[in-house]
Amino acid sequence: MGKSAVIYDFGINLQAETMLTAKEIAKQIGGQILVSESDVIITNAAKLEEGKSDSLGFLSNPKYEQALYETHCGAVIVPLNFKPQHPIAAVLIHHDNPYFAFCTILGKYFDPNKHRTGIESKHIHETAKLGNDVHIGSTAYLEESVSVGNNTIIYPGAYIGRNVKIGNNCIIYPNVVIYSDCIVGNHCIIQAGSVIGGDGFGFAPVNGKYVKIPQVGNVVLEDWVEVGSNCSIDRATMGSTVIKTGTKLDNLVQIAHNVEIGEHTVIAAQTGISGSTKVGGYSQFGGQVGVAGHLTIAPKTSVGGQAGITGNVTEENQKLTGTPATDVRTFLKSVANNRKLSAMMQELETLKREIESIKKL
Amino acid sequence: MGKSAVIYDFGINLQAETMLTAKEIAKQIGGQILVSESDVIITNAAKLEEGKSDSLGFLSNPKYEQALYETHCGAVIVPLNFKPQHPIAAVLIHHDNPYFAFCTILGKYFDPNKHRTGIESKHIHETAKLGNDVHIGSTAYLEESVSVGNNTIIYPGAYIGRNVKIGNNCIIYPNVVIYSDCIVGNHCIIQAGSVIGGDGFGFAPVNGKYVKIPQVGNVVLEDWVEVGSNCSIDRATMGSTVIKTGTKLDNLVQIAHNVEIGEHTVIAAQTGISGSTKVGGYSQFGGQVGVAGHLTIAPKTSVGGQAGITGNVTEENQKLTGTPATDVRTFLKSVANNRKLSAMMQELETLKREIESIKKL
Amino acid sequence: MGKSAVIYDFGINLQAETMLTAKEIAKQIGGQILVSESDVIITNAAKLEEGKSDSLGFLSNPKYEQALYETHCGAVIVPLNFKPQHPIAAVLIHHDNPYFAFCTILGKYFDPNKHRTGIESKHIHETAKLGNDVHIGSTAYLEESVSVGNNTIIYPGAYIGRNVKIGNNCIIYPNVVIYSDCIVGNHCIIQAGSVIGGDGFGFAPVNGKYVKIPQVGNVVLEDWVEVGSNCSIDRATMGSTVIKTGTKLDNLVQIAHNVEIGEHTVIAAQTGISGSTKVGGYSQFGGQVGVAGHLTIAPKTSVGGQAGITGNVTEENQKLTGTPATDVRTFLKSVANNRKLSAMMQELETLKREIESIKKL
Repeated sequence: MGKSAVIYDFGINLQAETMLTAKEIAKQIGGQILVSESDVIITNAAKLEEGKSDSLGFLSNPKYEQALYETHCGAVIVPLNFKPQHPIAAVLIHHDNPYFAFCTILGKYFDPNKHRTGIESKHIHETAKLGNDVHIGSTAYLEESVSVGNNTIIYPGAYIGRNVKIGNNCIIYPNVVIYSDCIVGNHCIIQAGSVIGGDGFGFAPVNGKYVKIPQVGNVVLEDWVEVGSNCSIDRATMGSTVIKTGTKLDNLVQIAHNVEIGEHTVIAAQTGISGSTKVGGYSQFGGQVGVAGHLTIAPKTSVGGQAGITGNVTEENQKLTGTPATDVRTFLKSVANNRKLSAMMQELETLKREIESIKKL
Repeated sequence: MGKSAVIYDFGINLQAETMLTAKEIAKQIGGQILVSESDVIITNAAKLEEGKSDSLGFLSNPKYEQALYETHCGAVIVPLNFKPQHPIAAVLIHHDNPYFAFCTILGKYFDPNKHRTGIESKHIHETAKLGNDVHIGSTAYLEESVSVGNNTIIYPGAYIGRNVKIGNNCIIYPNVVIYSDCIVGNHCIIQAGSVIGGDGFGFAPVNGKYVKIPQVGNVVLEDWVEVGSNCSIDRATMGSTVIKTGTKLDNLVQIAHNVEIGEHTVIAAQTGISGSTKVGGYSQFGGQVGVAGHLTIAPKTSVGGQAGITGNVTEENQKLTGTPATDVRTFLKSVANNRKLSAMMQELETLKREIESIKKL
Repeated sequence: MGKSAVIYDFGINLQAETMLTAKEIAKQIGGQILVSESDVIITNAAKLEEGKSDSLGFLSNPKYEQALYETHCGAVIVPLNFKPQHPIAAVLIHHDNPYFAFCTILGKYFDPNKHRTGIESKHIHETAKLGNDVHIGSTAYLEESVSVGNNTIIYPGAYIGRNVKIGNNCIIYPNVVIYSDCIVGNHCIIQAGSVIGGDGFGFAPVNGKYVKIPQVGNVVLEDWVEVGSNCSIDRATMGSTVIKTGTKLDNLVQIAHNVEIGEHTVIAAQTGISGSTKVGGYSQFGGQVGVAGHLTIAPKTSVGGQAGITGNVTEENQKLTGTPATDVRTFLKSVANNRKLSAMMQELETLKREIESIKKL
């Protein structure tokens, strides 16, 4: 499961309720239109292969250039220095980052997430403090001393425990659970069903039984953190489990107690980080990776899907994979070597026989 | 974790509230009773080893035949051509598919899932359209423009987002979340806690930070799809993430954005399919399998537990396992070869020494 | 992902609302204070490195002894026979199990989980039976014939199905779903979002399609069982899926239908046990382990993270890892051998060349 942090792949478009001209789009993104005919009307966004005359498309990777000559899209965002080799029917909007510009338009005009407004819930403790323009869905539950920042949206079925602080401009999707004392920064998104601050898995073996160790710490999500659906991030035994600024977790990710994940790190689905491990910033994890406990992983580490990290990673910028994880080249070499094992065994047999015959001479 | 799509293993029976004679059972399943004494009364279903005089059992696999001679079950469904080698106390009901016939009776008379009826919830938007004989549990939440087909059951705590369409005869268990614009076909079952249509994991790296790419697509579950508990199926960036007719997902399965899973495929627990991958129909995945993104997997592919698929699978009917996945025979050969490595090293040492002595001659 | 059942790692302390003297602490845990000055006031608990003059710390592992000489903690629990090599500012409280004693104080005075009291929910069926001092959160849903023991706490958003029996002194966290007929013993804790008793993954292939096999059994959690967040424990096809006394599951664990997990076993996050497998008591599983179906695993088995168990484990006390799992020594030997493969290949080439030259002589 390679990392899927960045996706350049699109399907068909949804019906949009917006109409824009190519000129207006160019203005919105600071792009340039080199030809005069720029008043084509755009009502949706699409892949080049699937667009119609009212669709906006984009070309980012030159290897898909052929699609541009064949597209039915009405307008296409292309690189700043792009020079067509053939005639193109679409209006071209030039921009230095076509994909980013395309996404900007997508998020601004075609995003289906229209959140409700207003306080619907009757399950908000009288001591809870709500900022301006907050939405609380009807079956959401806010405990004693909760505080919620401005413009934050809490969907139905979410449970927000005692003393939890949530910053401004956050979205807490349905059925998210945040246990007491946890802290969520500004601009955070938590997808449905995730659990923030459940008890860490700590038990003391006493006479062959396990006695629960109280988990009295909390979880801190800094700003711009996104947590996928059905993730579990455990509270610290003492102190804090911390996810730093800008870090993004995919779905079904497990973060154990007292873990720290550095800033601007992406972790793909079903990966698990064991207790007290510290992951450096700007790292990337594929899906289903396991990291053992009490380790330190250097910043800018890149880990392949299903890898198992069993020791500290001390140098930055390493690319690791396999279990136990090694650098990618060593892993690939090892896989290739393994495939030659049968041949090696035969050669070994041949050599044995040859030596036997030499010895008989 | 081998696939567990079909389970031939039973424990003890639950208390049933139904009484049937063996004759009635035979009639229900179109089975034959060859002996006259067929009025034994059945009130529950059980394994041959655990049944009592009022239990219905079955024999499907001939290797368990001995249990039939020792069972206390009052009636047993056996293959059509089965001829006992010893006397049997139970009434025998002959059928060409004993296990399927047994399950039919089980589902019809002994299923503990008695769903409630009626509209209990006060959290249904006025624009939502409900079919006939729909049940909506009291804390379920239905957003604007939701439509729900006939005989569909939505349990408490479920959240159904804006514009979601759910077909006829579906069961949506408690605390399921379906985000806006997703489509659920007819006869679908979604077990508790699953999240359908959460945002795909798409971020554009801009100056060392990750900017969220709007996920404006949806999820489409076709007819007869079953989704286990606590699964995550992400909405497409644009277009649709699709699970085709008859496909069954076990628990804790991750389906990333823009994935397509073909028809009549089974995927065991904790497996993850990365973004934009297309899986052909009639495939089978064991548990904890990882599939990388942007791949095409041929129909009728069978994948062993914990395998990691890193490239396209172009031929049908392959059986793959290991990481990176190879066909099962190659994998097993490789495991066997690995176990001989120490012996090989010793042989190599021996040869070296022998050559040294030859050279000294 | 090594097992993280016992965590000796602490972060910074939370603000506490309690004041204790060192003398009172010593009395609470049956510890001894050897020096006279023992009236230091303690208001929180901390790591030795992070404590202040009002913090309680502990020293359990002798390798951290240096931290004791440098700590600012006001009081520290130390081993019974501990003799300092240097002067220590803190008051020492001697105890034969310092960590356990520390946890006792932590759980008694500094636990942030203050549960609510009273029956808030209006979604409790009239036939449900509630014990004394039960708390039911406002959006929790209790179906027909549910019974709940004394002192048990059910948080908002939890769904408790028909006929479910929950014992005394349990905590059911928000948005947990327990399907009909399941049984939860005494002193059990189920963290948020877990699903107990969803349908097992059982389908009969009939003419290329899958027909659902009714899952008419249940789940039984015995006493002192803890289930982490977002776990899935499936009901048996018939009979019971059983988790025995004292067993603890971490987050995102999958337990398939008809599985039995023995007593006092710990299973780390994201592990999956396939259908009908029986795991012996006093076992330990690392994270992301997969166990195939229909196996028997001997008691006291210890399994490393990401291992895949594909066959029965017949001897007790084995330590297994890898896929397919072997004993840890064999696995490590195999990893080491693999790293020598390139060297072996070169040696083989050298030998071939030497033999060629010998043959030419």
